Amino acid sequence: MTTHPSLAIDLDLLAPFSGTRCVVTGGLGFIGSNLALTLDAAGAQVDVIDALVPEHGGDVRNLGDNRQINVVLGSIADERITLESVQQADFVFNLAGQVSHLESMTDPLRDLELNVRSHLSFLETLRHHRPGAVVVHASTRQVYGRPRYLPVDEEHPTAPVDINGIDKLAGEQYHLLYARVHDMSISALRLTNVYGPRQNLSKDGLGFLPVFIRRVHAGQPITLYGDGEQLRDCMHVNDVVSAVLLAAIVPDARGQVFNLGHPSPMSLRAIAQAMVAQQPGSDITTVPWPSDLAPIDIGSFSGDYSKAKRILGWEPHVDFVDGIADTFAFYREHTWYQSPI
Amino acid sequence: MTTHPSLAIDLDLLAPFSGTRCVVTGGLGFIGSNLALTLDAAGAQVDVIDALVPEHGGDVRNLGDNRQINVVLGSIADERITLESVQQADFVFNLAGQVSHLESMTDPLRDLELNVRSHLSFLETLRHHRPGAVVVHASTRQVYGRPRYLPVDEEHPTAPVDINGIDKLAGEQYHLLYARVHDMSISALRLTNVYGPRQNLSKDGLGFLPVFIRRVHAGQPITLYGDGEQLRDCMHVNDVVSAVLLAAIVPDARGQVFNLGHPSPMSLRAIAQAMVAQQPGSDITTVPWPSDLAPIDIGSFSGDYSKAKRILGWEPHVDFVDGIADTFAFYREHTWYQSPI
Repeated sequence: MTTHPSLAIDLDLLAPFSGTRCVVTGGLGFIGSNLALTLDAAGAQVDVIDALVPEHGGDVRNLGDNRQINVVLGSIADERITLESVQQADFVFNLAGQVSHLESMTDPLRDLELNVRSHLSFLETLRHHRPGAVVVHASTRQVYGRPRYLPVDEEHPTAPVDINGIDKLAGEQYHLLYARVHDMSISALRLTNVYGPRQNLSKDGLGFLPVFIRRVHAGQPITLYGDGEQLRDCMHVNDVVSAVLLAAIVPDARGQVFNLGHPSPMSLRAIAQAMVAQQPGSDITTVPWPSDLAPIDIGSFSGDYSKAKRILGWEPHVDFVDGIADTFAFYREHTWYQSPI
Repeated sequence: MTTHPSLAIDLDLLAPFSGTRCVVTGGLGFIGSNLALTLDAAGAQVDVIDALVPEHGGDVRNLGDNRQINVVLGSIADERITLESVQQADFVFNLAGQVSHLESMTDPLRDLELNVRSHLSFLETLRHHRPGAVVVHASTRQVYGRPRYLPVDEEHPTAPVDINGIDKLAGEQYHLLYARVHDMSISALRLTNVYGPRQNLSKDGLGFLPVFIRRVHAGQPITLYGDGEQLRDCMHVNDVVSAVLLAAIVPDARGQVFNLGHPSPMSLRAIAQAMVAQQPGSDITTVPWPSDLAPIDIGSFSGDYSKAKRILGWEPHVDFVDGIADTFAFYREHTWYQSPI
């Protein structure tokens, strides 16, 4: 497997983490495992904390044959689980959470526990036992709801359209409040649609990108809802990892929230077409919006990431065609991602 | 004790509740007890649900010698507590909650339980067992944080400055989401500073108005932080009760959030002066902002209530001087409000 050069993470971003102690919550998940492996390769001592909540994307196999990363299984809500890792941490990357919008509507109290209470509890642990750690929180563009204008900047009103969005917003706001009121080095990134290696392809509810990838691999048609003309930013996970690392090392990031985004937002139809082009014989079909999803659809979205560019010096480097080719190559090599659980 | 005519609640507002079954959560508290007594007087069968959480303002004595109101003691989070009342309810006035900003910062997980999880749980009970009830939720202007412009309308971005504000916003957003997604008749009112009879005067942390009133009664000086020039809308509780009743009976209120406000915002100094004028010999002192409060101060606030005026036909009728005179008369007559717990 060869990797497109644009996918490499800048070595200048890795150097500051050499010899540091890093905690990655949700580190057995998609973005978390990519980050943990990157930090490990940078020479950091990495503790992963992950509850392996059923229906989430986490899997111990995401860390491959790495034996250096210390894996702690349990909830970030439980100080007995987190304390040893947290007490020594220089950097805490708080990526744990539940991401399914639909599941948040059918079991809202569970989403509240996973995205709100556990994070508030974790922040209390940090405040009492390691207030000097640098913390980066993974938030989501979902806090904006249906955009009033495009591209959406950080000043856009927050108006989430589902329980998951309400809960993620509360979790993010707690982080920024602790930065301000308790004088902690915390920043938050509002992620958007992310793809790349180590994403759980076997489950629905983790976003449309892994579903599309799974269906193309399985020789099933990609199903588009409605006209498929809704825009999305597709972020390769390495660009997200770069943003997370920058948020940790740029002092001016402290107390700030940053959008991520891509210079070339794509329609769902164009995304599907780019994927289908990777696999001869695959196809696209169109159906009306399912009744349970229509009320929480947000239409087109694209993020204004000029604040991240200005303050973090970040911008995405991976073009979708390069990134998706690399992603498909990864999943052809690691076939277990495609087998149903 | 004579009551100023402007304080009377319009009889046209009361008629629709005659013969109905109403639930008032937090109905032993300040606003809740005033509402429960009003509904009872209107001929409704009223169930009050109140957990009498220590440090909150609730007190069984707020209902006086009324024997018609059915009091259920327990948490709205517990379906075993709420089910019997909820199953028969035509109207549910959801006023339960924790209001102390300072306490939310020292015990954030408790605020989360009381203002977020219990409300989500209560909404699930309503959705499953009485989705047709009309629900009015008491939210707060605190969701706006430090105003970017005055007066603040409902389009103003939400940016709470403390845990209580983050939690109240999540609770409010759940209510509006359930209206939209589950097709329920739910509206929310963003309350601002409220005064009047049946407010707990003995505790700090329930807003500055009861503290000012207590100190004037006790012959202690009112202490102003900073220059005392911050503006606030002071709402007499009867004007709030009128707004709550209108939100329940106006069909277009469904799914909407409304600011309350007053045509004459007052500075804290002017508020203090109006109170001191009621009690010869009382006084005002000025001190710098306490360090634990400064980070969560929001400066001046005044609410644009034109949406409530347009859709609900609501506007406040009680001038502060009339309202505070009536309030002082009430507390002179009911002296237990001034005794420490």
